[in-house]
Amino acid sequence: MMLKNPADKYRPFDLGVDMSDRTWPSKSITAAPRWLSTDLRDGNQALADPMDVEKKMRFWNKLMEVGLKEVEVGFPSASQIEFDFVRKLIEGSHIPDDVAVQVLVQSREDLIARTFESLKGAKQAIVHLYNATSPLFRRVVFGLEKADVIALAVKGATAIMAEAAKQPDTKWMFEYSPETFSATELDFAVEVCERVMDVFGATQENPVILNLPATVEVSMPNLYADQIEYFCRKLSRRDSAIISIHPHNDRGTGIAAAELSLLAGADRIEGCLFGNGERTGNVDLVTLALNLYTQGITPNLDFSDIRSVVRTVEYCNALPVHPRHPYAGELVFTAFSGSHQDAIRKGFAAHEQRNDGIWEMPYLPIDPADLGESYEAVIRVNSQSGKGGIAWILEQDKGLKLPRRFQVDFSRKIQEIADATGKEMHAEDIWHAFEGAYHLNGEQKYELLEYADSGILRTGGERLFAGRIRHDGVEVPVNGRGNGLISSAVNALNDSYGLGLEVVDFHEHALYKGTDAKAVAYVECKTPDDRKVFGVGIDSDTATASVKAILSAANAL
Amino acid sequence: MMLKNPADKYRPFDLGVDMSDRTWPSKSITAAPRWLSTDLRDGNQALADPMDVEKKMRFWNKLMEVGLKEVEVGFPSASQIEFDFVRKLIEGSHIPDDVAVQVLVQSREDLIARTFESLKGAKQAIVHLYNATSPLFRRVVFGLEKADVIALAVKGATAIMAEAAKQPDTKWMFEYSPETFSATELDFAVEVCERVMDVFGATQENPVILNLPATVEVSMPNLYADQIEYFCRKLSRRDSAIISIHPHNDRGTGIAAAELSLLAGADRIEGCLFGNGERTGNVDLVTLALNLYTQGITPNLDFSDIRSVVRTVEYCNALPVHPRHPYAGELVFTAFSGSHQDAIRKGFAAHEQRNDGIWEMPYLPIDPADLGESYEAVIRVNSQSGKGGIAWILEQDKGLKLPRRFQVDFSRKIQEIADATGKEMHAEDIWHAFEGAYHLNGEQKYELLEYADSGILRTGGERLFAGRIRHDGVEVPVNGRGNGLISSAVNALNDSYGLGLEVVDFHEHALYKGTDAKAVAYVECKTPDDRKVFGVGIDSDTATASVKAILSAANAL
Repeated sequence: MMLKNPADKYRPFDLGVDMSDRTWPSKSITAAPRWLSTDLRDGNQALADPMDVEKKMRFWNKLMEVGLKEVEVGFPSASQIEFDFVRKLIEGSHIPDDVAVQVLVQSREDLIARTFESLKGAKQAIVHLYNATSPLFRRVVFGLEKADVIALAVKGATAIMAEAAKQPDTKWMFEYSPETFSATELDFAVEVCERVMDVFGATQENPVILNLPATVEVSMPNLYADQIEYFCRKLSRRDSAIISIHPHNDRGTGIAAAELSLLAGADRIEGCLFGNGERTGNVDLVTLALNLYTQGITPNLDFSDIRSVVRTVEYCNALPVHPRHPYAGELVFTAFSGSHQDAIRKGFAAHEQRNDGIWEMPYLPIDPADLGESYEAVIRVNSQSGKGGIAWILEQDKGLKLPRRFQVDFSRKIQEIADATGKEMHAEDIWHAFEGAYHLNGEQKYELLEYADSGILRTGGERLFAGRIRHDGVEVPVNGRGNGLISSAVNALNDSYGLGLEVVDFHEHALYKGTDAKAVAYVECKTPDDRKVFGVGIDSDTATASVKAILSAANAL
Repeated sequence: MMLKNPADKYRPFDLGVDMSDRTWPSKSITAAPRWLSTDLRDGNQALADPMDVEKKMRFWNKLMEVGLKEVEVGFPSASQIEFDFVRKLIEGSHIPDDVAVQVLVQSREDLIARTFESLKGAKQAIVHLYNATSPLFRRVVFGLEKADVIALAVKGATAIMAEAAKQPDTKWMFEYSPETFSATELDFAVEVCERVMDVFGATQENPVILNLPATVEVSMPNLYADQIEYFCRKLSRRDSAIISIHPHNDRGTGIAAAELSLLAGADRIEGCLFGNGERTGNVDLVTLALNLYTQGITPNLDFSDIRSVVRTVEYCNALPVHPRHPYAGELVFTAFSGSHQDAIRKGFAAHEQRNDGIWEMPYLPIDPADLGESYEAVIRVNSQSGKGGIAWILEQDKGLKLPRRFQVDFSRKIQEIADATGKEMHAEDIWHAFEGAYHLNGEQKYELLEYADSGILRTGGERLFAGRIRHDGVEVPVNGRGNGLISSAVNALNDSYGLGLEVVDFHEHALYKGTDAKAVAYVECKTPDDRKVFGVGIDSDTATASVKAILSAANAL
């Protein structure tokens, strides 16, 4: 089976107007838009299992925490559940004074009356009227001419004004959506909206919200921006309207459509957290807000504990946030690749050293800490990882600062395990591999039991190392001389067992992870046949740690 | 905890050049770009559990089915597994003649030699050299000046040319990526690329691929397009280069960045199926291809069995395709909302009637059938659904064409169930509810056992209906007269039980679902207290179906 020739079936999108004098591509976003969450309406209606009242309240409370000031809460005239939820919000005093609830309604007088009934006692509310305006909907779905579409919108707006007048204690705002705007002739969309503005009595002080949905995303995002700029230019009383956009994501470009539309003149965005909503979803408010944040613009929404937002939304929607979802997915701050890990480690070191607070980090466009995420998740290890990532994890998790050649030796061992298992290695797996590779536990060929060393007997003289070790299960005395503790300990083993080890490098540092301070010593030795062996020792005494490191190297032979 | 003031920490992206004379916003896409899949390289390295050889082969085979002609298969000099996989592809003759494998390598002579070793015997191959060029990477990661960065790239390209000359039987193509291009000074990016082009001996006949990655997406997509247009203008031998882009998706605008870059002059796109890849992923090739398709442009990639592509990719990556992923998610052709369902039903009816093959459908930007998806999944029912969706499912699934008022009656019953359970209702749930609501099975107050009717005795005369029914478990004879079968059957019940039913509407149609043809009859009756009751009967005999419908209505009292 092959895809058909699409030219037989699909027509390219036609903007229908000349926008070669567009100005939006040279503009920048300088401030956050007004945000409306439609999670409880457009989001909810697209769920296989819509939210019950408990879930709606939980979602509402999270939206308040995040700082939403406009929230579409349902379609109260169409469903008893949604009616009851609006009543619960109002009667339970769950709506802060600076928050407006928004409800959706069609142009039918009985539905409008019922809608206003649901809003009795609200301090402020937005009544959102819509009807579809595109040629396809006029022709196929409703059988209406353009004039009928205008008349329908005007009739609804008139009924809304009449009902609003009966409840003068509520501060009313009105919103009109020419549904399927993005597929509507632009001049007709302007015409419908202007007629509705007239009925609503829009002024600069009391502007009407004109919401221009990409009900289905039908074009590239630059063309949606062209539509928004054209609409803003043609609207005769632009200053009496809040231009709101409502992008969906059918072509995967909802975020871009929203951002380019802000350049083109939009004031307000309707969307859902993590892009829930019909089909491919509404535009994602979290990504939009954090995109502004990383450009130095205050988004007026708070995602400083993003994990708790993810948990609430996943619970209420019963849909997952994808592991690669921008800012929120579990993999988006993760580096598995060795070169990425190495660059990030260097970036963090430079960041600490520079100490100017400016975030400039390879591969990390946002500081995970700003979202309440820990740095520990940044670097994760699989067969694609190099020494840098493994060293980082041992340092983050256990406080070990492996010397460079030691990193190379250990990362080779980790690669072998990762290649063999084909699985990601977590911090504990890496630590167990480390213990195993350097014989920090379990059966040891050479195990230190006790030792004494003599100190420096005379200037230029030698130290004597005298100890007891367990060798292949048998306790034996060993001793050796050298010009220091390390060399005398090595010689003790060399003399007894003919190992011929030569210490070529040694590092030791304090280890503050855990309750009490310890020391960790690393030795690199050369064998008579020129192989390298590495050893590590950990002990509360720095001298003993270094002796243990020697035995660790001997064990690695 | 509140988000900090981002202006203290983040700097807005600065394009660094004046692009107010940009031309891309007035252009359109007219043909598909060249595609490269990097699923087996950039995608694979970002997996917690990278693919083993079996999974890589499976992914490779699917890419061949889909029609990819350029595939980046790994970093053979960095990993034995990836080296072995390249060998397996070549030695097993798994590479069609018109397909080029691509491999990545850094600018190090030993790695380059090893890379060419992996490619021995390939018919054609692309060797992909990269080094990072942005100020942050120069300063923090590598400690290199601009001249050092150029020297590094030139050194790598020189080594590649030397190795290529040793294997003249392979048709070589060369690709160079200034990694972190999108954060690099534009004029410097041009300078590095021109120097590399010189070494590779780029000509119109043998152009070099210059790949310009948004390694991390750091700006709005229109600014990436500005970068691409600027680069294409400044490059002195534009006709000797294939301009390739490699967008990531950190800001959720990777698709838009790719599409706008095609307007700006790009020839080729590197990405992954369903947007796998580092962090938020590489740009998604599936969405890009199908976006072209819905605009009437042949994408040269075949997703006519998209479900099988989803299955393979989910298996190999061990990552899910999100339910709202454009074109491929399980919810993207689904309508739960009543008004959406109603519009889609009308759209399908108009589509059949028009019969011109052009796809114009409310809420469905692509014909699900083009992707191998069935229409049955389009409409799904929950508490947000209306009569239209329920009627559609009964028609699709059982062949029932419910009359309008019957739809209203049944949808009210379904709403009650959906509100009470809060769950999605599947086709079988709806059918069981239908059987229950109209007493098609189970305990029946009035059950037809047998009947005879007399036919028309004389013109203008009456029919006699004489039958046996089971009433509350007891077999009783009933009979009644009327001017037709229906009225005589109703009267039989009315006379015996004083029901007072009056038939106000009747429909019947053939039912071809299942192995043998049946008839289904719907009656709408009025009770003495002016309530409406509905009944339905199904039988292989049309007459009996209508009598059963009468009893069904009586059972509903």
